[in-house]
Amino acid sequence: MKRGRSQAEPHVIYGINAVVALLDRSPERVLKVYVQDNLGPKRLGRIGNRFDRIAVEVSRVASTRLDEMAGTAKHQGIAALVKPSTTLGEAEACDLIGQLERPLILVLDGIEDPRNFGACLRSADAAGADLVVTARSRNVGMTAVVSKVAAGAAEAQPVAQVANLARFMNFMRDAGIWLVGTDGNAEATLFGTDLTQSVGLVLGAEGRGLRRLTRERCDTLVSLPLLGTVESLNISVAAGICLYEAVRQRELV
Amino acid sequence: MKRGRSQAEPHVIYGINAVVALLDRSPERVLKVYVQDNLGPKRLGRIGNRFDRIAVEVSRVASTRLDEMAGTAKHQGIAALVKPSTTLGEAEACDLIGQLERPLILVLDGIEDPRNFGACLRSADAAGADLVVTARSRNVGMTAVVSKVAAGAAEAQPVAQVANLARFMNFMRDAGIWLVGTDGNAEATLFGTDLTQSVGLVLGAEGRGLRRLTRERCDTLVSLPLLGTVESLNISVAAGICLYEAVRQRELV
Repeated sequence: MKRGRSQAEPHVIYGINAVVALLDRSPERVLKVYVQDNLGPKRLGRIGNRFDRIAVEVSRVASTRLDEMAGTAKHQGIAALVKPSTTLGEAEACDLIGQLERPLILVLDGIEDPRNFGACLRSADAAGADLVVTARSRNVGMTAVVSKVAAGAAEAQPVAQVANLARFMNFMRDAGIWLVGTDGNAEATLFGTDLTQSVGLVLGAEGRGLRRLTRERCDTLVSLPLLGTVESLNISVAAGICLYEAVRQRELV
Repeated sequence: MKRGRSQAEPHVIYGINAVVALLDRSPERVLKVYVQDNLGPKRLGRIGNRFDRIAVEVSRVASTRLDEMAGTAKHQGIAALVKPSTTLGEAEACDLIGQLERPLILVLDGIEDPRNFGACLRSADAAGADLVVTARSRNVGMTAVVSKVAAGAAEAQPVAQVANLARFMNFMRDAGIWLVGTDGNAEATLFGTDLTQSVGLVLGAEGRGLRRLTRERCDTLVSLPLLGTVESLNISVAAGICLYEAVRQRELV
Protein backbone atom coordinates (compact mmCIF):
# COMPACT_ATOMS: atom_id res chain seq x y z
CA MET A 1 0.00 0.00 0.00
CA LYS A 2 1.47 3.30 -1.11
CA ARG A 3 -1.59 5.24 -0.09
CA GLY A 4 -0.85 5.99 3.51
CA ARG A 5 2.77 6.93 2.88
CA SER A 6 4.28 9.96 4.47
CA GLN A 7 5.70 12.63 2.22
CA ALA A 8 9.19 12.40 3.67
CA GLU A 9 10.63 9.55 1.57
CA PRO A 10 10.92 8.80 -2.12
CA HIS A 11 7.87 6.95 -3.38
CA VAL A 12 6.52 5.35 -6.51
CA ILE A 13 4.10 7.00 -8.89
CA TYR A 14 2.72 5.20 -11.94
CA GLY A 15 0.66 5.66 -15.07
CA ILE A 16 1.61 7.49 -18.24
CA ASN A 17 -0.10 10.77 -17.35
CA ALA A 18 1.41 10.95 -13.89
CA VAL A 19 4.96 10.14 -15.00
CA VAL A 20 4.86 12.38 -18.07
CA ALA A 21 3.50 15.30 -16.06
CA LEU A 22 6.20 14.98 -13.45
CA LEU A 23 8.92 14.69 -16.11
CA ASP A 24 7.59 17.86 -17.68
CA ARG A 25 6.94 19.87 -14.57
CA SER A 26 9.52 18.72 -12.05
CA PRO A 27 12.15 16.54 -13.75
CA GLU A 28 14.49 17.12 -10.79
CA ARG A 29 12.12 15.10 -8.60
CA VAL A 30 12.33 11.97 -10.77
CA LEU A 31 14.99 9.60 -9.42
CA LYS A 32 14.42 6.64 -11.71
CA VAL A 33 11.93 5.49 -14.34
CA TYR A 34 10.76 1.90 -14.76
CA VAL A 35 9.35 0.85 -18.12
CA GLN A 36 7.73 -2.51 -18.86
CA ASP A 37 10.13 -4.63 -20.93
CA ASN A 38 7.60 -5.43 -23.66
CA LEU A 39 5.98 -1.99 -23.85
CA GLY A 40 4.88 -1.23 -27.42
CA PRO A 41 6.62 1.55 -29.35
CA LYS A 42 3.36 3.51 -29.72
CA ARG A 43 2.88 3.84 -26.01
CA LEU A 44 6.54 4.43 -25.41
CA GLY A 45 6.65 7.08 -28.13
CA ARG A 46 4.70 9.50 -25.98
CA ILE A 47 7.32 9.41 -23.26
CA GLY A 48 10.53 8.15 -24.87
CA ASN A 49 11.72 11.50 -26.19
CA ARG A 50 11.57 12.92 -22.68
CA PHE A 51 14.17 10.49 -21.41
CA ASP A 52 16.74 11.93 -23.80
CA ARG A 53 16.26 15.43 -22.50
CA ILE A 54 16.80 14.63 -18.85
CA ALA A 55 19.50 12.69 -17.10
CA VAL A 56 17.34 10.00 -15.56
CA GLU A 57 18.04 6.31 -15.34
CA VAL A 58 15.51 4.16 -17.19
CA SER A 59 15.17 0.48 -16.31
CA ARG A 60 13.31 -2.12 -18.32
CA VAL A 61 11.44 -4.42 -15.95
CA ALA A 62 8.85 -7.18 -16.12
CA SER A 63 5.19 -6.30 -15.85
CA THR A 64 4.94 -8.25 -12.60
CA ARG A 65 7.68 -6.09 -11.05
CA LEU A 66 5.65 -2.99 -11.95
CA ASP A 67 2.51 -4.59 -10.45
CA GLU A 68 4.46 -4.99 -7.23
CA MET A 69 5.92 -1.48 -7.19
CA ALA A 70 2.63 0.19 -8.00
CA GLY A 71 0.53 -2.10 -5.82
CA THR A 72 -1.87 -2.45 -8.75
CA ALA A 73 -1.86 -3.74 -12.32
CA LYS A 74 -3.13 -0.38 -13.60
CA HIS A 75 0.34 1.12 -14.12
CA GLN A 76 0.10 1.26 -17.95
CA GLY A 77 3.64 -0.11 -18.17
CA ILE A 78 5.41 2.75 -16.46
CA ALA A 79 6.36 3.82 -12.97
CA ALA A 80 8.84 6.21 -11.44
CA LEU A 81 10.61 6.60 -8.14
CA VAL A 82 10.21 10.23 -7.14
CA LYS A 83 11.37 12.56 -4.44
CA PRO A 84 8.56 13.91 -2.28
CA SER A 85 6.99 17.10 -3.51
CA THR A 86 8.28 20.19 -1.85
CA THR A 87 5.66 22.84 -1.63
CA LEU A 88 6.87 26.17 -2.90
CA GLY A 89 7.73 29.11 -0.71
CA GLU A 90 6.79 32.67 -1.53
CA ALA A 91 9.90 33.47 -3.61
CA GLU A 92 9.68 30.27 -5.64
CA ALA A 93 5.97 30.82 -6.25
CA CYS A 94 6.71 34.36 -7.48
CA ASP A 95 9.32 32.94 -9.86
CA LEU A 96 6.87 30.35 -11.15
CA ILE A 97 4.15 32.94 -11.71
CA GLY A 98 6.62 35.10 -13.60
CA GLN A 99 7.18 32.27 -16.06
CA LEU A 100 3.50 31.55 -16.73
CA GLU A 101 1.78 32.89 -19.79
CA ARG A 102 -1.88 32.99 -18.78
CA PRO A 103 -1.99 31.55 -15.28
CA LEU A 104 -4.98 29.77 -13.80
CA ILE A 105 -4.43 29.82 -10.05
CA LEU A 106 -6.53 28.53 -7.17
CA VAL A 107 -6.19 30.45 -3.90
CA LEU A 108 -7.54 28.73 -0.78
CA ASP A 109 -8.12 30.93 2.25
CA GLY A 110 -7.93 28.92 5.45
CA ILE A 111 -8.86 25.38 4.42
CA GLU A 112 -8.56 23.11 7.45
CA ASP A 113 -10.05 19.75 6.49
CA PRO A 114 -7.40 17.51 4.89
CA ARG A 115 -10.03 15.64 2.84
CA ASN A 116 -11.27 18.92 1.40
CA PHE A 117 -7.73 20.11 0.70
CA GLY A 118 -6.88 16.82 -1.05
CA ALA A 119 -10.09 17.01 -3.07
CA CYS A 120 -9.23 20.61 -4.07
CA LEU A 121 -5.79 19.49 -5.27
CA ARG A 122 -7.42 16.74 -7.36
CA SER A 123 -9.85 19.23 -8.92
CA ALA A 124 -7.06 21.77 -9.53
CA ASP A 125 -4.82 19.16 -11.18
CA ALA A 126 -7.68 17.87 -13.36
CA ALA A 127 -8.47 21.38 -14.55
CA GLY A 128 -4.81 22.04 -15.33
CA ALA A 129 -4.39 24.78 -12.72
CA ASP A 130 -0.85 26.14 -12.70
CA LEU A 131 -0.66 26.70 -8.97
CA VAL A 132 -2.61 26.30 -5.74
CA VAL A 133 -1.86 28.95 -3.13
CA THR A 134 -2.53 28.52 0.58
CA ALA A 135 -1.54 30.42 3.69
CA ARG A 136 1.08 28.55 5.70
CA SER A 137 -0.33 29.27 9.12
CA ARG A 138 -4.02 28.84 8.43
CA ASN A 139 -4.16 25.86 6.13
CA VAL A 140 -3.75 22.15 6.63
CA GLY A 141 -0.35 20.85 5.46
CA MET A 142 0.53 18.06 3.03
CA THR A 143 -0.49 15.07 5.14
CA ALA A 144 -1.00 11.47 4.09
CA VAL A 145 -4.78 12.00 4.10
CA VAL A 146 -4.39 14.94 1.72
CA SER A 147 -2.19 12.82 -0.54
CA LYS A 148 -4.61 9.89 -0.54
CA VAL A 149 -7.71 11.95 -1.28
CA ALA A 150 -5.84 13.90 -3.96
CA ALA A 151 -5.51 10.64 -5.96
CA GLY A 152 -2.03 11.47 -7.23
CA ALA A 153 -2.48 15.23 -7.53
CA ALA A 154 -0.50 15.95 -4.36
CA GLU A 155 2.64 14.70 -6.15
CA ALA A 156 2.01 16.65 -9.36
CA GLN A 157 0.11 19.83 -8.56
CA PRO A 158 2.37 22.79 -7.70
CA VAL A 159 1.32 24.18 -4.32
CA ALA A 160 2.60 27.34 -2.69
CA GLN A 161 2.38 27.90 1.04
CA VAL A 162 2.88 31.57 1.73
CA ALA A 163 3.45 33.34 5.02
CA ASN A 164 1.08 36.22 4.34
CA LEU A 165 -1.78 35.56 1.96
CA ALA A 166 -2.91 39.19 1.66
CA ARG A 167 0.60 40.30 0.73
CA PHE A 168 0.92 37.49 -1.80
CA MET A 169 -2.39 38.49 -3.34
CA ASN A 170 -0.99 42.00 -3.76
CA PHE A 171 1.95 40.48 -5.59
CA MET A 172 -0.38 38.47 -7.82
CA ARG A 173 -2.37 41.58 -8.70
CA ASP A 174 0.84 43.44 -9.52
CA ALA A 175 1.76 40.50 -11.77
CA GLY A 176 -1.40 41.14 -13.77
CA ILE A 177 -3.54 38.39 -12.28
CA TRP A 178 -7.26 39.15 -11.97
CA LEU A 179 -8.37 37.98 -8.52
CA VAL A 180 -11.91 36.59 -8.51
CA GLY A 181 -13.28 35.78 -5.05
CA THR A 182 -16.35 33.68 -4.40
CA ASP A 183 -18.88 35.15 -2.00
CA GLY A 184 -22.44 33.95 -1.54
CA ASN A 185 -23.66 37.55 -1.30
CA ALA A 186 -22.02 38.79 -4.50
CA GLU A 187 -24.41 40.02 -7.16
CA ALA A 188 -22.20 39.06 -10.09
CA THR A 189 -22.26 35.36 -10.92
CA LEU A 190 -19.34 33.16 -11.86
CA PHE A 191 -20.85 32.48 -15.27
CA GLY A 192 -21.06 36.16 -16.13
CA THR A 193 -17.38 36.77 -15.34
CA ASP A 194 -14.54 36.67 -17.85
CA LEU A 195 -12.01 34.04 -16.77
CA THR A 196 -10.05 33.86 -20.02
CA GLN A 197 -7.23 36.14 -18.88
CA SER A 198 -4.69 35.49 -16.12
CA VAL A 199 -6.90 34.67 -13.19
CA GLY A 200 -6.72 33.69 -9.54
CA LEU A 201 -9.87 32.04 -8.17
CA VAL A 202 -10.10 32.77 -4.45
CA LEU A 203 -12.19 30.45 -2.28
CA GLY A 204 -12.88 30.74 1.43
CA ALA A 205 -12.83 28.13 4.14
CA GLU A 206 -15.60 25.68 4.83
CA GLY A 207 -18.60 27.46 6.33
CA ARG A 208 -16.81 30.75 6.99
CA GLY A 209 -16.16 32.09 3.53
CA LEU A 210 -13.43 34.59 2.73
CA ARG A 211 -11.80 36.53 5.53
CA ARG A 212 -12.21 40.29 5.30
CA LEU A 213 -8.57 40.95 4.39
CA THR A 214 -8.71 38.32 1.67
CA ARG A 215 -12.01 39.60 0.30
CA GLU A 216 -10.67 43.15 0.14
CA ARG A 217 -7.74 41.99 -2.00
CA CYS A 218 -10.05 40.53 -4.68
CA ASP A 219 -10.67 42.50 -7.86
CA THR A 220 -14.20 41.19 -8.09
CA LEU A 221 -16.54 38.95 -6.13
CA VAL A 222 -18.83 36.40 -7.72
CA SER A 223 -21.42 33.96 -6.43
CA LEU A 224 -22.56 30.56 -7.57
CA PRO A 225 -26.34 30.24 -7.78
CA LEU A 226 -27.72 28.11 -4.94
CA LEU A 227 -31.09 26.86 -6.11
CA GLY A 228 -31.95 24.39 -3.36
CA THR A 229 -31.84 24.29 0.42
CA VAL A 230 -28.15 23.94 1.21
CA GLU A 231 -26.38 27.15 2.07
CA SER A 232 -23.12 26.38 0.34
CA LEU A 233 -21.30 23.88 -1.82
CA ASN A 234 -18.46 21.72 -0.59
CA ILE A 235 -15.28 23.74 -1.21
CA SER A 236 -13.77 21.14 -3.56
CA VAL A 237 -16.98 21.06 -5.59
CA ALA A 238 -17.08 24.87 -5.71
CA ALA A 239 -13.40 24.88 -6.74
CA GLY A 240 -14.13 22.31 -9.46
CA ILE A 241 -17.04 24.33 -10.83
CA CYS A 242 -15.03 27.59 -10.83
CA LEU A 243 -11.93 26.00 -12.40
CA TYR A 244 -13.91 24.18 -15.09
CA GLU A 245 -15.81 27.35 -15.94
CA ALA A 246 -12.36 28.85 -16.68
CA VAL A 247 -11.50 25.73 -18.73
CA ARG A 248 -14.76 26.06 -20.66
CA GLN A 249 -14.27 29.75 -21.39
CA ARG A 250 -10.64 29.27 -22.40
CA GLU A 251 -11.59 26.55 -24.91
CA LEU A 252 -13.75 29.09 -26.70
CA VAL A 253 -11.09 31.77 -27.23
CA MET B 1 -25.96 17.40 17.98
CA LYS B 2 -28.38 16.63 15.20
CA ARG B 3 -25.67 15.52 12.83
CA GLY B 4 -25.42 11.86 13.65
CA ARG B 5 -29.17 11.31 13.80
CA SER B 6 -30.71 8.30 12.17
CA GLN B 7 -33.37 8.87 9.55
CA ALA B 8 -36.03 6.94 11.44
CA GLU B 9 -37.38 9.72 13.70
CA PRO B 10 -38.71 13.22 13.20
CA HIS B 11 -35.92 15.77 13.38
CA VAL B 12 -35.37 19.50 13.27
CA ILE B 13 -34.33 21.42 10.19
CA TYR B 14 -33.65 25.16 10.27
CA GLY B 15 -32.92 28.16 8.13
CA ILE B 16 -35.25 29.98 5.77
CA ASN B 17 -34.13 28.16 2.62
CA ALA B 18 -34.42 24.71 4.14
CA VAL B 19 -37.86 25.29 5.68
CA VAL B 20 -39.29 27.06 2.64
CA ALA B 21 -38.03 24.35 0.29
CA LEU B 22 -39.58 21.62 2.37
CA LEU B 23 -42.88 23.49 2.65
CA ASP B 24 -42.90 23.81 -1.14
CA ARG B 25 -41.72 20.36 -2.07
CA SER B 26 -42.98 18.06 0.66
CA PRO B 27 -45.44 19.92 2.90
CA GLU B 28 -46.74 16.57 4.18
CA ARG B 29 -43.40 16.01 5.88
CA VAL B 30 -43.60 19.20 7.97
CA LEU B 31 -45.04 18.42 11.40
CA LYS B 32 -44.61 21.82 13.04
CA VAL B 33 -42.96 25.15 12.32
CA TYR B 34 -41.23 27.30 14.93
CA VAL B 35 -40.82 31.01 14.25
CA GLN B 36 -38.81 33.43 16.39
CA ASP B 37 -41.22 35.62 18.36
CA ASN B 38 -39.64 38.91 17.27
CA LEU B 39 -38.99 38.00 13.65
CA GLY B 40 -39.33 41.05 11.42
CA PRO B 41 -42.18 41.23 8.89
CA LYS B 42 -39.76 41.39 5.96
CA ARG B 43 -38.17 38.09 6.75
CA LEU B 44 -41.48 36.53 7.70
CA GLY B 45 -43.05 37.75 4.46
CA ARG B 46 -41.11 35.28 2.42
CA ILE B 47 -42.59 32.37 4.30
CA GLY B 48 -45.76 33.63 5.96
CA ASN B 49 -48.04 33.11 2.97
CA ARG B 50 -47.07 29.45 2.87
CA PHE B 51 -48.49 28.81 6.32
CA ASP B 52 -51.96 29.78 5.11
CA ARG B 53 -51.88 27.26 2.30
CA ILE B 54 -50.98 24.27 4.42
CA ALA B 55 -52.42 22.95 7.63
CA VAL B 56 -49.32 23.17 9.77
CA GLU B 57 -49.06 24.37 13.32
CA VAL B 58 -46.88 27.45 13.73
CA SER B 59 -45.44 28.31 17.15
CA ARG B 60 -43.83 31.59 18.11
CA VAL B 61 -40.81 30.87 20.31
CA ALA B 62 -37.89 32.75 21.80
CA SER B 63 -34.65 32.93 19.87
CA THR B 64 -32.92 30.96 22.62
CA ARG B 65 -35.38 28.08 22.18
CA LEU B 66 -34.53 27.99 18.46
CA ASP B 67 -30.81 28.02 19.31
CA GLU B 68 -31.43 24.95 21.42
CA MET B 69 -33.53 23.10 18.84
CA ALA B 70 -31.13 23.83 15.98
CA GLY B 71 -27.99 23.31 18.03
CA THR B 72 -26.69 26.55 16.54
CA ALA B 73 -27.58 30.24 16.46
CA LYS B 74 -27.61 30.24 12.66
CA HIS B 75 -31.28 29.32 12.32
CA GLN B 76 -32.38 32.66 10.81
CA GLY B 77 -35.38 32.70 13.13
CA ILE B 78 -37.08 29.59 11.80
CA ALA B 79 -37.03 25.86 12.37
CA ALA B 80 -39.34 22.97 11.65
CA LEU B 81 -39.95 19.51 13.00
CA VAL B 82 -40.06 17.20 10.01
CA LYS B 83 -40.73 13.56 9.26
CA PRO B 84 -37.75 11.72 7.83
CA SER B 85 -37.45 11.76 4.09
CA THR B 86 -38.71 8.67 2.40
CA THR B 87 -36.86 7.93 -0.79
CA LEU B 88 -39.16 7.40 -3.72
CA GLY B 89 -39.87 4.05 -5.31
CA GLU B 90 -40.10 3.53 -9.06
CA ALA B 91 -43.81 4.33 -9.38
CA GLU B 92 -43.56 7.49 -7.29
CA ALA B 93 -40.52 8.62 -9.22
CA CYS B 94 -42.40 8.11 -12.51
CA ASP B 95 -45.28 10.21 -11.12
CA LEU B 96 -42.88 12.96 -10.09
CA ILE B 97 -41.16 13.00 -13.48
CA GLY B 98 -44.57 13.23 -15.18
CA GLN B 99 -45.24 16.45 -13.26
CA LEU B 100 -41.95 18.16 -14.09
CA GLU B 101 -41.72 20.71 -16.85
CA ARG B 102 -38.05 20.58 -17.85
CA PRO B 103 -36.47 18.12 -15.49
CA LEU B 104 -32.82 18.20 -14.44
CA ILE B 105 -32.08 14.74 -13.09
CA LEU B 106 -28.89 13.20 -11.73
CA VAL B 107 -28.54 9.44 -12.26
CA LEU B 108 -25.86 7.68 -10.17
CA ASP B 109 -24.80 4.24 -11.34
CA GLY B 110 -23.43 2.20 -8.46
CA ILE B 111 -22.14 4.77 -5.99
CA GLU B 112 -20.88 2.96 -2.89
CA ASP B 113 -19.08 5.50 -0.75
CA PRO B 114 -21.54 7.25 1.61
CA ARG B 115 -19.40 10.42 1.71
CA ASN B 116 -19.50 10.63 -2.06
CA PHE B 117 -23.24 9.96 -2.14
CA GLY B 118 -23.87 12.65 0.49
CA ALA B 119 -21.66 15.09 -1.42
CA CYS B 120 -23.59 14.31 -4.63
CA LEU B 121 -26.88 15.06 -2.86
CA ARG B 122 -25.47 18.39 -1.66
CA SER B 123 -24.35 19.30 -5.19
CA ALA B 124 -27.68 18.17 -6.68
CA ASP B 125 -29.69 20.17 -4.17
CA ALA B 126 -27.52 23.28 -4.69
CA ALA B 127 -28.01 23.09 -8.45
CA GLY B 128 -31.76 22.69 -8.04
CA ALA B 129 -31.88 19.16 -9.48
CA ASP B 130 -35.41 17.80 -9.49
CA LEU B 131 -34.47 14.23 -8.71
CA VAL B 132 -31.49 11.98 -7.96
CA VAL B 133 -31.91 8.41 -9.23
CA THR B 134 -29.93 5.47 -7.86
CA ALA B 135 -30.20 1.70 -8.19
CA ARG B 136 -31.50 0.11 -5.00
CA SER B 137 -29.22 -2.90 -5.00
CA ARG B 138 -25.98 -1.26 -6.08
CA ASN B 139 -25.96 2.03 -4.25
CA VAL B 140 -25.33 3.00 -0.68
CA GLY B 141 -28.53 3.81 1.25
CA MET B 142 -29.53 6.89 3.22
CA THR B 143 -27.21 6.50 6.18
CA ALA B 144 -26.27 9.01 8.87
CA VAL B 145 -22.94 9.63 7.10
CA VAL B 146 -24.78 10.44 3.87
CA SER B 147 -27.07 12.80 5.75
CA LYS B 148 -24.19 14.54 7.54
CA VAL B 149 -22.09 15.06 4.42
CA ALA B 150 -25.14 16.20 2.46
CA ALA B 151 -25.38 19.22 4.81
CA GLY B 152 -29.18 19.23 4.84
CA ALA B 153 -29.72 18.06 1.27
CA ALA B 154 -30.62 14.51 2.34
CA GLU B 155 -33.81 15.89 3.90
CA ALA B 156 -34.75 18.06 0.93
CA GLN B 157 -33.48 16.49 -2.25
CA PRO B 158 -35.93 14.00 -3.83
CA VAL B 159 -34.12 10.69 -4.31
CA ALA B 160 -35.47 7.66 -6.15
CA GLN B 161 -34.12 4.18 -5.51
CA VAL B 162 -35.18 1.96 -8.38
CA ALA B 163 -34.96 -1.81 -8.67
CA ASN B 164 -33.68 -1.84 -12.24
CA LEU B 165 -31.72 1.18 -13.39
CA ALA B 166 -31.60 0.22 -17.08
CA ARG B 167 -35.39 -0.22 -17.17
CA PHE B 168 -35.89 3.10 -15.40
CA MET B 169 -33.62 4.81 -17.90
CA ASN B 170 -35.83 3.43 -20.68
CA PHE B 171 -38.80 5.01 -18.92
CA MET B 172 -36.96 8.32 -18.65
CA ARG B 173 -36.15 8.28 -22.36
CA ASP B 174 -39.78 7.53 -23.18
CA ALA B 175 -40.72 10.49 -21.00
CA GLY B 176 -38.64 12.72 -23.27
CA ILE B 177 -35.57 13.01 -21.09
CA TRP B 178 -32.23 13.26 -22.90
CA LEU B 179 -29.79 10.95 -21.13
CA VAL B 180 -26.24 12.31 -21.09
CA GLY B 181 -23.65 9.89 -19.71
CA THR B 182 -20.13 10.85 -18.69
CA ASP B 183 -17.34 8.70 -20.05
CA GLY B 184 -13.66 9.59 -20.06
CA ASN B 185 -13.27 8.20 -23.57
CA ALA B 186 -16.13 10.14 -25.14
CA GLU B 187 -15.11 12.54 -27.90
CA ALA B 188 -17.92 15.01 -27.25
CA THR B 189 -17.33 17.27 -24.27
CA LEU B 190 -19.80 18.33 -21.65
CA PHE B 191 -19.41 21.96 -22.65
CA GLY B 192 -20.36 21.27 -26.26
CA THR B 193 -23.58 19.50 -25.29
CA ASP B 194 -27.00 21.14 -25.06
CA LEU B 195 -28.36 20.70 -21.54
CA THR B 196 -31.19 23.19 -21.77
CA GLN B 197 -33.90 20.61 -22.46
CA SER B 198 -35.16 17.85 -20.16
CA VAL B 199 -31.97 16.10 -19.23
CA GLY B 200 -30.68 13.23 -17.11
CA LEU B 201 -26.96 13.41 -16.27
CA VAL B 202 -25.67 9.87 -15.79
CA LEU B 203 -22.50 9.36 -13.73
CA GLY B 204 -20.68 6.13 -13.03
CA ALA B 205 -19.23 4.79 -9.83
CA GLU B 206 -15.89 5.81 -8.38
CA GLY B 207 -13.06 4.45 -10.51
CA ARG B 208 -15.20 2.10 -12.58
CA GLY B 209 -17.27 4.46 -14.68
CA LEU B 210 -20.60 3.53 -16.20
CA ARG B 211 -21.58 -0.13 -16.47
CA ARG B 212 -22.13 -1.36 -20.02
CA LEU B 213 -25.91 -1.65 -19.65
CA THR B 214 -26.11 1.85 -18.25
CA ARG B 215 -23.86 3.31 -20.93
CA GLU B 216 -25.93 1.70 -23.68
CA ARG B 217 -29.06 3.40 -22.36
CA CYS B 218 -27.54 6.88 -22.71
CA ASP B 219 -28.49 9.02 -25.69
CA THR B 220 -25.04 10.56 -25.78
CA LEU B 221 -21.73 10.28 -23.96
CA VAL B 222 -19.60 13.24 -22.98
CA SER B 223 -16.25 13.67 -21.30
CA LEU B 224 -14.83 16.33 -19.04
CA PRO B 225 -11.37 17.51 -20.09
CA LEU B 226 -8.68 16.17 -17.75
CA LEU B 227 -5.71 18.48 -18.16
CA GLY B 228 -3.43 17.23 -15.40
CA THR B 229 -2.23 13.91 -14.07
CA VAL B 230 -5.26 12.54 -12.23
CA GLU B 231 -7.31 10.05 -14.20
CA SER B 232 -10.71 11.16 -12.98
CA LEU B 233 -12.52 13.69 -10.87
CA ASN B 234 -14.22 12.86 -7.60
CA ILE B 235 -17.79 11.87 -8.50
CA SER B 236 -19.39 14.66 -6.46
CA VAL B 237 -17.12 17.21 -8.13
CA ALA B 238 -17.94 15.78 -11.58
CA ALA B 239 -21.64 15.86 -10.66
CA GLY B 240 -21.31 19.48 -9.53
CA ILE B 241 -19.57 20.52 -12.74
CA CYS B 242 -22.15 18.75 -14.94
CA LEU B 243 -25.14 20.07 -13.00
CA TYR B 244 -23.82 23.63 -12.92
CA GLU B 245 -23.11 23.52 -16.64
CA ALA B 246 -26.83 22.79 -17.03
CA VAL B 247 -27.61 25.68 -14.66
CA ARG B 248 -25.35 27.99 -16.67
CA GLN B 249 -26.88 27.02 -19.99
CA ARG B 250 -30.42 27.30 -18.69
CA GLU B 251 -29.79 30.82 -17.40
CA LEU B 252 -29.00 31.88 -20.96
CA VAL B 253 -32.22 30.65 -22.60
